[in-house]
Amino acid sequence: MSQLVGNLLVAQSGGPTAAINASVAGVVTEAGRHPDTIEEIYGGLNGIYGILNEEIIDIQEEQRATIDALRFAPAAALGTCRYKIDFKKKPEKAAQDMDRLFEVFKAHNIRYFFYAGGNDSQDTSHKIHLEAEKRGWEMRVIGVPKTIDNDLPHTDSCPGYGSAIKYCATTVREVGMDVASMATDDGSCCIIEVMGRSAGWIAAGTVLAKGGNPANPPHIVLLPEIQYDVDEFVAKVKETIAAYGYCVVVVGEGIKNKAGEEIGADKTRLDAFGHPVLAGAAEKLKDYIQEKLNTKTRTVMLGYAQRAAAHWASLTDINNGFACGEAAVRAAVGGQSGYMVKIVRNPTPNGTIEWSTGLQPLGDIANVEHFVPREWIAEDGFLPNQEFVNYAGPLIEGEVRPRMVNGLPDYVRLTKNKVEKVLPPRG
Amino acid sequence: MSQLVGNLLVAQSGGPTAAINASVAGVVTEAGRHPDTIEEIYGGLNGIYGILNEEIIDIQEEQRATIDALRFAPAAALGTCRYKIDFKKKPEKAAQDMDRLFEVFKAHNIRYFFYAGGNDSQDTSHKIHLEAEKRGWEMRVIGVPKTIDNDLPHTDSCPGYGSAIKYCATTVREVGMDVASMATDDGSCCIIEVMGRSAGWIAAGTVLAKGGNPANPPHIVLLPEIQYDVDEFVAKVKETIAAYGYCVVVVGEGIKNKAGEEIGADKTRLDAFGHPVLAGAAEKLKDYIQEKLNTKTRTVMLGYAQRAAAHWASLTDINNGFACGEAAVRAAVGGQSGYMVKIVRNPTPNGTIEWSTGLQPLGDIANVEHFVPREWIAEDGFLPNQEFVNYAGPLIEGEVRPRMVNGLPDYVRLTKNKVEKVLPPRG
Repeated sequence: MSQLVGNLLVAQSGGPTAAINASVAGVVTEAGRHPDTIEEIYGGLNGIYGILNEEIIDIQEEQRATIDALRFAPAAALGTCRYKIDFKKKPEKAAQDMDRLFEVFKAHNIRYFFYAGGNDSQDTSHKIHLEAEKRGWEMRVIGVPKTIDNDLPHTDSCPGYGSAIKYCATTVREVGMDVASMATDDGSCCIIEVMGRSAGWIAAGTVLAKGGNPANPPHIVLLPEIQYDVDEFVAKVKETIAAYGYCVVVVGEGIKNKAGEEIGADKTRLDAFGHPVLAGAAEKLKDYIQEKLNTKTRTVMLGYAQRAAAHWASLTDINNGFACGEAAVRAAVGGQSGYMVKIVRNPTPNGTIEWSTGLQPLGDIANVEHFVPREWIAEDGFLPNQEFVNYAGPLIEGEVRPRMVNGLPDYVRLTKNKVEKVLPPRG
Repeated sequence: MSQLVGNLLVAQSGGPTAAINASVAGVVTEAGRHPDTIEEIYGGLNGIYGILNEEIIDIQEEQRATIDALRFAPAAALGTCRYKIDFKKKPEKAAQDMDRLFEVFKAHNIRYFFYAGGNDSQDTSHKIHLEAEKRGWEMRVIGVPKTIDNDLPHTDSCPGYGSAIKYCATTVREVGMDVASMATDDGSCCIIEVMGRSAGWIAAGTVLAKGGNPANPPHIVLLPEIQYDVDEFVAKVKETIAAYGYCVVVVGEGIKNKAGEEIGADKTRLDAFGHPVLAGAAEKLKDYIQEKLNTKTRTVMLGYAQRAAAHWASLTDINNGFACGEAAVRAAVGGQSGYMVKIVRNPTPNGTIEWSTGLQPLGDIANVEHFVPREWIAEDGFLPNQEFVNYAGPLIEGEVRPRMVNGLPDYVRLTKNKVEKVLPPRG
């Protein structure tokens, strides 16, 4: 293995999670262990979007305590973006972007590049890795997994997911107890909408709130992987209320009806990747229930709160996120490039789980979505089963203790000392 | 003072809070200190609604550890209801209900009655107190304050409020950091909707997330006390995005436009008290912003989660809730009736707050709403000011540590051993 001496650049992409900063902390911490190889530790602001504008900070100027505390801070400490280098739809723009990226890499002697993100971001990392080879710029590129959606393939799970479902399952348990305690003659229903456009991992994860008791909420979990007959759903709600006096439903935002249409889609608006913006599956279902059953129905829409809730993160998740960052640097210093770090689950004989990391070629990851397996969902589609519980349970173990000031979590922020720009502004 | 020997009945009413069980724990704990006076400690299930059906449990059969843990459990452990004894609209039904209530009280020798609730429930307590005097049934009736809405008069604050705003302010801070970290060319906006039909205490409380920094979220807080010009609001959002690149807005569900109409009202549906169901102020404002500014806007609707989030309760709030329960029993055993316990704030010379309790005649409380004072809101109406911060800050101090099992809070539940019914079923 050849020793490659130069600078490191780490950046974040896509929606933040409660664990994405833990991965950056892992990268920075591990990088500090290789002073002969890694000279400067840089952070790219707002992912590719900022790097194209040469927006780079010097992370070594941050205090060590800041990096330690970064593990427990929400949002993307370096800033993030939704920016795609799209050779298919915009080949000319994509080629320009790629040229510019390598100008920036060369100008700052970037030899190690780490990008924390989901499907789209792993695709970006893969393209950068291939371009580096093509251009003969020796640079080690490793993707770091990140997404509350948990939809990356080949990895046991994605940093961010465990924290999201710990928070969502806690909310479902608390709201469930609240709804159960309000007596009415006609029963009541509460629908909690969580994120998940095409994969239902987050919605499924709330099944942990049951604690193994079928009478406990959530009573129904609707996943985007299944196409639902709305009348069957309403019948299930009615049956649940008859049994328990109330019904708590969790819906993934991207759930579909029998015709395969997204129930909550607002087709008038598109996101940065051209997908219709989803909003309102819970509201739509509420209308159905109130119309068909005349049952008092309320909704909760956690939105960004579920990916930002660092006050209630899973320590297992934070530790795995940190380990992914460390492993990325170890792999790169060891000569690897073009891989994503993956989390590996190692069950021990005493029933606990030990976690390690592995590497998977980025080409296997990019733009492949991993769905909740059909065999982990009850036959009628209305609840994840015990196999899912066995999978998800270990991901929410362990608590964090944020530093509190005046009754609120006092999350660390980077001072962000900018590295001097040396290139002319982007054309 | 005459010693009144007999049984105690405690019940809960209205929407649950994270502190309502702390008050019951306070009642039960204090009652245990007066064994010569209080013979049996009963709980009424689902408030008046259950008591009318003689649904009563024996709380002395619960384990002591259960009562201790009750302080930290969400929802209403005894069950709750929204049931009004309405002499104005339904005088005949109300008279029947009152007769039945006193049949139940007499059948179980209830001499001490404690009802934890908000405005409507204090009104119920007041009526029961007056009826007891009229009927010559010696019984001490004390109301225990409870509401996340914080809209009861004469008390410094209401148990449940501090926990609700600790959770909501934490959410605003976390979501704010998340939104801030996502770079876009056009800026972005996030609207977080919280409860509060006519009083904006909860929305106002999220201003604590700023931590004194004007640049920090929330940037705009809309309160039901103010009538807003929607165009002025949109201009404020635009100005905020120009300054910071993003804008976090918090809205109380009952906010009104210049014409005084509730922006989120769904006039097609009424609640149990005949008020229109509110849902969607945030969605309505999102539509305005997207239409006028073409700015990417997302919403969070915390719904029941904000009153059920016992995992993030304020210890000050829990302690005050417990103290109100204790004080209610002390007052009643001391011969008082017809009062609500109120929380009293005692600033110390070193700047900290000590809390005590007092008594206020129920007649001063019932159906009176306490609003955020106009002088605690900035002149333009878009943010609570420092005077509000000085008021609300102490209410969120201190953390709870729920018992965790398998990564989730393991909240206690009462076993609810029923007291045998002795009356014929309600007619």
